[in-house]
Amino acid sequence: MGTPSSAATAAATDLSPCTIMGAGLVGSLLALYLARRGHVVDVYERRADPRLSGAVEGRSINLALSDRGWRALEGVGISEQVREVAIPMYRRVMHDQQGRLTYQPYGRENQAIYSVSRGGLNRTLLNLTEADPRIRMHFNEHCQHVDLRARRLEMHNTLTDQEQTLPFRRLFGADGAYSAVRGAMQKTDRYEFSQSYLEYGYKELTIEAGPNSEWQLEKNALHIWPRGQYMMIALPNLDGSFNCTLFFPYEGQESFTALETAPQVQEFFKERFPDAVPFMPDLAEEFIQNPTGSLITVKCFPWVHKDEIVLLGDASHAIVPFYGQGMNAGFEDCSVLDSLLNQYGEDWHMVFSEFQRQRKPNADAMADLAIYNFEEMRDRVANPRFLLQKKIESKISAQYPDQWLPLYSQVTFSDTPYADAWANGQRQESIMQRLMPHIQTEADYDLPAVQEMVRQEMEKIDALSSMA
Amino acid sequence: MGTPSSAATAAATDLSPCTIMGAGLVGSLLALYLARRGHVVDVYERRADPRLSGAVEGRSINLALSDRGWRALEGVGISEQVREVAIPMYRRVMHDQQGRLTYQPYGRENQAIYSVSRGGLNRTLLNLTEADPRIRMHFNEHCQHVDLRARRLEMHNTLTDQEQTLPFRRLFGADGAYSAVRGAMQKTDRYEFSQSYLEYGYKELTIEAGPNSEWQLEKNALHIWPRGQYMMIALPNLDGSFNCTLFFPYEGQESFTALETAPQVQEFFKERFPDAVPFMPDLAEEFIQNPTGSLITVKCFPWVHKDEIVLLGDASHAIVPFYGQGMNAGFEDCSVLDSLLNQYGEDWHMVFSEFQRQRKPNADAMADLAIYNFEEMRDRVANPRFLLQKKIESKISAQYPDQWLPLYSQVTFSDTPYADAWANGQRQESIMQRLMPHIQTEADYDLPAVQEMVRQEMEKIDALSSMA
Repeated sequence: MGTPSSAATAAATDLSPCTIMGAGLVGSLLALYLARRGHVVDVYERRADPRLSGAVEGRSINLALSDRGWRALEGVGISEQVREVAIPMYRRVMHDQQGRLTYQPYGRENQAIYSVSRGGLNRTLLNLTEADPRIRMHFNEHCQHVDLRARRLEMHNTLTDQEQTLPFRRLFGADGAYSAVRGAMQKTDRYEFSQSYLEYGYKELTIEAGPNSEWQLEKNALHIWPRGQYMMIALPNLDGSFNCTLFFPYEGQESFTALETAPQVQEFFKERFPDAVPFMPDLAEEFIQNPTGSLITVKCFPWVHKDEIVLLGDASHAIVPFYGQGMNAGFEDCSVLDSLLNQYGEDWHMVFSEFQRQRKPNADAMADLAIYNFEEMRDRVANPRFLLQKKIESKISAQYPDQWLPLYSQVTFSDTPYADAWANGQRQESIMQRLMPHIQTEADYDLPAVQEMVRQEMEKIDALSSMA
Repeated sequence: MGTPSSAATAAATDLSPCTIMGAGLVGSLLALYLARRGHVVDVYERRADPRLSGAVEGRSINLALSDRGWRALEGVGISEQVREVAIPMYRRVMHDQQGRLTYQPYGRENQAIYSVSRGGLNRTLLNLTEADPRIRMHFNEHCQHVDLRARRLEMHNTLTDQEQTLPFRRLFGADGAYSAVRGAMQKTDRYEFSQSYLEYGYKELTIEAGPNSEWQLEKNALHIWPRGQYMMIALPNLDGSFNCTLFFPYEGQESFTALETAPQVQEFFKERFPDAVPFMPDLAEEFIQNPTGSLITVKCFPWVHKDEIVLLGDASHAIVPFYGQGMNAGFEDCSVLDSLLNQYGEDWHMVFSEFQRQRKPNADAMADLAIYNFEEMRDRVANPRFLLQKKIESKISAQYPDQWLPLYSQVTFSDTPYADAWANGQRQESIMQRLMPHIQTEADYDLPAVQEMVRQEMEKIDALSSMA
């Protein structure tokens, strides 16, 4: 006792090999990945166990799971279990102010994004962590301070009011946009950090199930009410209801500030979303009682501290939700980290530095894509010329599948790095800018002059990719 | 006692009307401005009184005071006192790698920026605050927490180790780039914040005085050793020495990382700055012992919280030092705030919101200008074409003084809002891009074709300004 060697032994026994901050979607999936590699994992979560409390989540109710997310779930063998409770959405359905509908498929036939419940998915992941004896979950543990130098966490248990100091060897910050782990890293020398907010908030509302739990709108679709400067969307639930989200300016003539009373809310929705209002019996009450969420973008660098700490998910790259990629990108963090561990073994220094080198530009690109898709959803999808362009792009993609995968498909139905997808997408957009002036109808695509232009553009793409 | 009215009276007596966090350059000047308006002012400063300790400052040793700074000093009647210890610098002197010199005047004859000692200026300002009975200075007071809701400061005295909680009514955060006041505001809803760093650090070095305290380089100039990807500058001191600053990459072939030993430092300086080395006897020792400073840019919004808190100077807009405008912009904050108080009286809500409305775009423009001037100083000033262009711009300005004030003069020798200066400067640059292909020598300016082009461009400027 007290000799250096026994102290070292004691420390080695006390230390958990892996400590994860946050038991949300990314934290609990990461725990499964690390445990399957043989690590003992301690997971600390500020909130109560959602399986006990049944508490309302702080974040949006449904999420759109797409290929990157599925791949990460497959990596720990749980995709089938999740698929049973996921609803495929094959296309966008746009609702105009007269209730008329237009359609835009997400990809090829049978390609879909999947509506899943955030709470349900989180509970599924937590049940799986519980089943693994290498994972120890600690709820109601609020991280008050991370001491980077001493590698210690100061934790406060919000149930028992006990404080404790915990050592860590390897810390994974999966504690969200307001990450305490990142907060400690922000105080290190020359830390790059930005947080910014859209001038839009969001409000969650409900479209009720019909009689016999029928869906009152097309079930297998993501519904959009694009209104130029704002929009509402709806995603299907298993019980026949839809979760709606209104993305709406904080200030201005049509804004949260301008809608204060129940009659104002009713009147506004009747005018702007007339076909949805009949299915929203609790509209005004929900609008007034539900909180208004804000839309943060977080960028930071570095994501790692020595071979000791790494940030994942929203902690290092919170994005706005409009591409449905927040969870998918966080899940992809887990599968990328896992494949780097396969590649470099337990050389954590190499694994962590490769992780941030690969992921940082992709996270930055995804942040830009998410803002871009907001403009598309709230505005451009209401424009017939835009929809025509999308149809022409599908035709190009069908005719030249090796040269042209639409941007949305690259992001949603592939594992192309986000930064590459974004660069390809910008190149495609400039091609469409040259092409569309020659196209007035879908049939014009087959005009010899148009076909020749397309052929030449595809040759240029071939030349570019052979140079790369 | 205990009745609402006596409690209110007690509170009113306890509360200082104005609390300033930070007794640096901006905090102490602001104290003078507020006291002259009749306010009682409490100033809290984390560090010791620099007049007692004689401690080395944490920041760069000299600063370039220019018109905005002088105007702010005049506002409290102390410009003459400062001018006595300031050294005018009328031009840039560029030193190439062979020690050959080229020159670029800053403005018209007799226009100069002034080399002043940060520490000396701060002590002058502190002596003046001391002479004003309405100002109470509190040194060694470290702000640990700002409670926005309760309007309370938690202060820790680093000498006595005493902690105290202080109420505030009106709080002015002049506590620098790592502001504690801003730190509290960052935690409010939807706070916009970014901190970013250049991949360059800086190192302060000394060119010694010659025999009889002579200046060994031209005294009334700012010296630049532009080297493309890095540079050294030197500003004169009253004692015959110059303070040099090397702005240098952290990483790479020529970088702080690459220069570790005294012989490496000596060899590098002999090769790159051969004409300076003979005057730098302590070069290697200073290089190794002096800290490497980092170059932060801070942007944030809002700058105010209700009618209770306002941020000024580096706390809200820390910029890189290459335009010599950090202190000048902070001083201008004080004079702008003072003129708004003249305009709106004690309507603090109006004063604060106008202050941030006017100053935020100017601070953003100044941040961009500061980065721009780094590229100019380290790279473009070594290019003969650039120097020729600057000469042509002087000629245009002499011929058309109402239409053309060079960008540098707008920033340095005028009170044109920074954002307007930046917009004008970009317009001027695009004119020069059209003009310079027709000009090979200074004399070409007088060619009829060139004169006609210039005349037409000036007409366009006139048309633009008559529209505005």
